Amino acid sequence: MNSMLSKNQIKLIKSLEQKKGRVQNALFIVEGIKGVSEFLKSNYKLRHVYTTQLIFNVPIDLVSEISEAELKKISALKNPNTALAIFEIPEEKTSEEEGLIVALDAIRDPGNLGTIIRLCDWYGIKTLVCGNNTVDCYNTKVVQATMGSLTRVNVQYLDLEAYLDSKKTEVFGTFLAGENIYHTDLPTNGVIVLGNEANGISEAIATKVNRKLTIPQFGEIKATESLNVANATAIVLSEFKRRTIIEK
Amino acid sequence: MNSMLSKNQIKLIKSLEQKKGRVQNALFIVEGIKGVSEFLKSNYKLRHVYTTQLIFNVPIDLVSEISEAELKKISALKNPNTALAIFEIPEEKTSEEEGLIVALDAIRDPGNLGTIIRLCDWYGIKTLVCGNNTVDCYNTKVVQATMGSLTRVNVQYLDLEAYLDSKKTEVFGTFLAGENIYHTDLPTNGVIVLGNEANGISEAIATKVNRKLTIPQFGEIKATESLNVANATAIVLSEFKRRTIIEK
Repeated sequence: MNSMLSKNQIKLIKSLEQKKGRVQNALFIVEGIKGVSEFLKSNYKLRHVYTTQLIFNVPIDLVSEISEAELKKISALKNPNTALAIFEIPEEKTSEEEGLIVALDAIRDPGNLGTIIRLCDWYGIKTLVCGNNTVDCYNTKVVQATMGSLTRVNVQYLDLEAYLDSKKTEVFGTFLAGENIYHTDLPTNGVIVLGNEANGISEAIATKVNRKLTIPQFGEIKATESLNVANATAIVLSEFKRRTIIEK
Repeated sequence: MNSMLSKNQIKLIKSLEQKKGRVQNALFIVEGIKGVSEFLKSNYKLRHVYTTQLIFNVPIDLVSEISEAELKKISALKNPNTALAIFEIPEEKTSEEEGLIVALDAIRDPGNLGTIIRLCDWYGIKTLVCGNNTVDCYNTKVVQATMGSLTRVNVQYLDLEAYLDSKKTEVFGTFLAGENIYHTDLPTNGVIVLGNEANGISEAIATKVNRKLTIPQFGEIKATESLNVANATAIVLSEFKRRTIIEK
């Protein structure tokens, strides 16, 4: 089979693995049948899909059938799965002012950001605000880890200090010492701040938090220093949301 | 600086990156100051530590000072941190029969297993049983992700079907349909089964589960198909454990 991929196409795809390339082109990569299908169902605009099987319902000029070897060449994955698509990065929507908002202070690990977006989707959090020091949500590994949830959560990058200053709702954050999250009243509105993997919430951001929460530790030996930030997010969202449903 | 590392030492260390090498030698690798320090404080037996700084309190014959370049050569990390140590894999202890036990059915991602071990440590779960199809807990990436928690949680590999058959306590599992975890009675004893990243709990194991639990989904669009398994574990352990503390 002759290559259907031009040098320029490969060059473009490779450039999108870096943030610089994504910003310059306003494009990002989605890989795999499930991911590509989820983005095709969403409002995201497809630029092109490269696939080893013509299984997607897209205009004929926006799809190229390629070989497994070609897919392997353009994929960032060890085991590429059928398709790699390029979508346009949309303009950021301004934040919802209602309900719970999750805010991230310097999350660096793409897998953590991806699963946090998936958690927001699960728990009906519409807006995720990220300090500018948080990993790019259009990073290929982040997109992969969201399992399509990125199409349903509005992610915004901004100056987190200024944003929190502007908020009139309560600002919550998780710390090693604070109110026991299991036994405190939690509202249906507010901002929940989660901090960096190694250092937690930075000092500058901590001064903006007016409700410090803690997830208590169990067991005889209390030697663990912290939870993984995505797991902490899971527990915190679970606590905020379980109180909003009425027991049958 | 001359190399302090012999070819045989490098060969041994490299072999421990594979399960086969770990099983043959009954040894595994711990990287980084924090990880190495945690294992040195524990009952794990040190075989040798290679370090760029002589900061560990260990017998002189069990430590080698090496250069940054040498550390880079033996490390599996992109950014190695000061030390790489080899510890002995201990014999498996038999399971605790009291309290809550977490059981894993075919967890494949090292990061997921690592953060699940960290969660068990946080929530005072002493025993984690893994079906033989779960990734090895002495995998370098797993050890890394546990942040030292592996020293405090007893991890056992076994035939999960036979194990669950032998248990007299209730067996819980998470499914898309089941009892709402937020509004059901949960005991302080029992086994909690979590399933594979892509396929959930297998059919064979599902027949052993007598209490199917579900984490309800929130929001208007319920399109997310599942949560990351480590995040699901976080939510489930939080639910079991918060009920054991008395409100002040």
